Amino acid sequence: MFKDDLDRVAHSRGQGTPDLLRLRSGSVRRLPDGIARPADEAETADLLRRAAENGVRVVPWGGGTSVTGGVNTPPGDAPVVVASLERLSGLSQLDESAGLATFGAGTPGPVVEKALDPHGLTLGHFPQSFEQSTLGGWIVTHSTGQESLRYGRIADRVAGLRLVAPGDRLVVPPLPASSSGPDLRWWVAGSEGRFGILTEATVRVTPKRYETRVEAAMLPSWWCGVDVARGLMRNADTAGLSMLRLSDEPETEVAMTVGLGDGPFAAVVNAWLQLRRVRHGCLLLLGAEDSLDGDRAFDGARAHVGEAGGVWLGRRPGRHWLRDRFRHPYLRDGLLDLGFVTDTLETAAPWSQLPALYDSVRAALRECVTVGEEEIPVLCHLSHPYEDGASLYFTFFFGCPNDGDGEAAVYRWADFKRRASQAIATAGGATSHHHGIGRWHSPWSDAEWSGGENAGGGRAMLEAVAQRLDPKGVMNPHVLLDPVDRLED
Amino acid sequence: MFKDDLDRVAHSRGQGTPDLLRLRSGSVRRLPDGIARPADEAETADLLRRAAENGVRVVPWGGGTSVTGGVNTPPGDAPVVVASLERLSGLSQLDESAGLATFGAGTPGPVVEKALDPHGLTLGHFPQSFEQSTLGGWIVTHSTGQESLRYGRIADRVAGLRLVAPGDRLVVPPLPASSSGPDLRWWVAGSEGRFGILTEATVRVTPKRYETRVEAAMLPSWWCGVDVARGLMRNADTAGLSMLRLSDEPETEVAMTVGLGDGPFAAVVNAWLQLRRVRHGCLLLLGAEDSLDGDRAFDGARAHVGEAGGVWLGRRPGRHWLRDRFRHPYLRDGLLDLGFVTDTLETAAPWSQLPALYDSVRAALRECVTVGEEEIPVLCHLSHPYEDGASLYFTFFFGCPNDGDGEAAVYRWADFKRRASQAIATAGGATSHHHGIGRWHSPWSDAEWSGGENAGGGRAMLEAVAQRLDPKGVMNPHVLLDPVDRLED
Repeated sequence: MFKDDLDRVAHSRGQGTPDLLRLRSGSVRRLPDGIARPADEAETADLLRRAAENGVRVVPWGGGTSVTGGVNTPPGDAPVVVASLERLSGLSQLDESAGLATFGAGTPGPVVEKALDPHGLTLGHFPQSFEQSTLGGWIVTHSTGQESLRYGRIADRVAGLRLVAPGDRLVVPPLPASSSGPDLRWWVAGSEGRFGILTEATVRVTPKRYETRVEAAMLPSWWCGVDVARGLMRNADTAGLSMLRLSDEPETEVAMTVGLGDGPFAAVVNAWLQLRRVRHGCLLLLGAEDSLDGDRAFDGARAHVGEAGGVWLGRRPGRHWLRDRFRHPYLRDGLLDLGFVTDTLETAAPWSQLPALYDSVRAALRECVTVGEEEIPVLCHLSHPYEDGASLYFTFFFGCPNDGDGEAAVYRWADFKRRASQAIATAGGATSHHHGIGRWHSPWSDAEWSGGENAGGGRAMLEAVAQRLDPKGVMNPHVLLDPVDRLED
Repeated sequence: MFKDDLDRVAHSRGQGTPDLLRLRSGSVRRLPDGIARPADEAETADLLRRAAENGVRVVPWGGGTSVTGGVNTPPGDAPVVVASLERLSGLSQLDESAGLATFGAGTPGPVVEKALDPHGLTLGHFPQSFEQSTLGGWIVTHSTGQESLRYGRIADRVAGLRLVAPGDRLVVPPLPASSSGPDLRWWVAGSEGRFGILTEATVRVTPKRYETRVEAAMLPSWWCGVDVARGLMRNADTAGLSMLRLSDEPETEVAMTVGLGDGPFAAVVNAWLQLRRVRHGCLLLLGAEDSLDGDRAFDGARAHVGEAGGVWLGRRPGRHWLRDRFRHPYLRDGLLDLGFVTDTLETAAPWSQLPALYDSVRAALRECVTVGEEEIPVLCHLSHPYEDGASLYFTFFFGCPNDGDGEAAVYRWADFKRRASQAIATAGGATSHHHGIGRWHSPWSDAEWSGGENAGGGRAMLEAVAQRLDPKGVMNPHVLLDPVDRLED
């Protein structure tokens, strides 16, 4: 293959499970017709103008890490150009007094932090895809970093932005707050390239004073742990926590085996837990600044954990997690080599609805087990807690059918996704908590936009803006607003 | 007048300064043709459907406290019906586990708090208009309560909502977070009735544990005080603060005279301040929970104030402020009786832009002084601080020309508003921080939506949604999207 063809293959798909399966088998199905790399806002505008004039479709590309089909080359006769934002990268302005940093939308996570580090500043946004994903990609998919308790979701950090649409431009100046109509930052956040290309964003950055410390505890049961998590969100004495992650029993068992199970430590912990009668417990990881304020938050949390009958495990399990925090996405390839497909999905709901949501998603995933097959593991953790609810993040596995081209595995995967998405929609959970809708979740987003009622206003509002800013339908077709089930596409 | 006519007069205008002047002189100019009081969502939908069919305009009415012309009866030949939401009032659902409370949009502030009180809960939203304004009105104008440091702006507290448009309905289910496309809660917040009528909202409520305590300090100068405010926003040890309000020198002088000046206390404070060489200082009011956590926040703040050469005044001035917190809007009438017009305006900007913004707004307001007239006082305070900036709130006064019908005072007022709004737009501040745009600010909102550049995307997005949800233009004409200067209308 020529270099050009390799470039097209590399920009044909994101990093979802079916993408991985098809890239491994070499059946990518569709390639973009070309890759554009605009150097600035003017070149981006020019690209979109010419695309509109010539019936070309444009797929914006940040880090290419979408796990929802958000950057996959769409089918159809129209030529497709991928607009890679790799040249719209780097820090262009820093206002240290206000703590505002302006970056190109194509700036990858490590470049963001490296640019801020000499100034003693951090954005504090560390999603699992951090090493590859970009600021612009985070904003248009509602990315949420691992320390969301302290730094919020990415949209909370956006003060200003610039968007280029085929027919117009949007400039939102960086302001701390305004009541001049609806806040247009929240119209662009989550728009997944359907309204235009985000070229630049001004984000709120924070003095970086201390490293993050992670401590662990074991709770006697999942629902006891969920109650502790809810309690921690209501207390002023634990306001300093930056991260909370509670694994259910199955995920805890896996963590104890593959994670904490290194060396002599695991045996000691297990023996200790058995002494404390916490045998099939749930692992709780908490993060905070390694400072006096952090100590205070950990002290508060330790009291809550103790009251709930849990056991405090200290820093060691947390060190393990910190070391591996960006590593998990890379493990999928290794599992595929061993004949296992794994994928994850996430949702969110009010605290009161989490039990029903947890049960129905687990049931839906386990329904997919075929007769005679071993029981498949379904793991779950609660993370990104809010005052009124939290996210649930599920991991499932299945044996990879060996049909040579991976298509059987894709169909099997689609069955899992379809049933889980339907279960989430029926239980009233969020279609997705921090990965966007892409091409794969859109059949179920209507349930969320209409509250499950006969109310079309939500979709109508989104479509009205897409049609106004992009009347020729240039931008990222099938993403966000197209309710066709494309899981197997 | 008949009861019906009184009803029409009472629903003809909000509570802005020209409204007050015209209601006092009896020249209200335009009356609505009728007042509708829908009892539920279905009746609201029916009202809007019939209005669209019959070319009627509808002005949604919550507490009628708009100070930006947001509820004034529009001119024109079309019949105008005010949709009073007074029957869409009260708590309809409470989820104590998640801390989610569902209220009718027409629920006034005191009714919100009274319904939550028996459950030990609070919404914590206390704008100055609290006693009359409603939950729905707060949401559609980006209302911001006095304790915004703890409870955020009202949109931060909205988990779900229901909106009825002439052609459709929007139902946003209460979720803690979602990445299913742009967050439609932020499309309705600030929409000022242009997209439809907000009928219901589910808000995040908080356990109410302690009363709010307010402590005061005196800083040697305004910019020193602004720097202290900025520092307090960056420090973990003052994270427990719920309120911050810093008066500039002129406002402090007025506060010392009319506010703190009661009884023997004022003389003692003045003597003490002179001893400490803080003579023409700036008053800083800080609020926090009256608890150990609050103590900690005050201790942190006291250290910052001390380092900056300020003097801690303790609780007494704060008690005064707490007592009068909802009283100031009612003083305007008294001042008019004495022959003085007073009004306020507010903006917001990043910390780095506050000095230029402060200077230019003050200069613009003082330009309005006519030759031979006494120097008019312009007062300012900084409040609602954020990590990246803060709001500036200006108060100005002028002598009321005695022309019998108040029209000269309205023209004079319009001159102040016009110059100040232009100064804010030129300096890149927010057109408004928490009062919305209404009819009076819209000529200047374009500067904010376009960042002062030739970029029409912001307005285009807002107009696209208004046209989709309200194709016949029924909803609140001239508000938000109409760039005609209607200050004197």
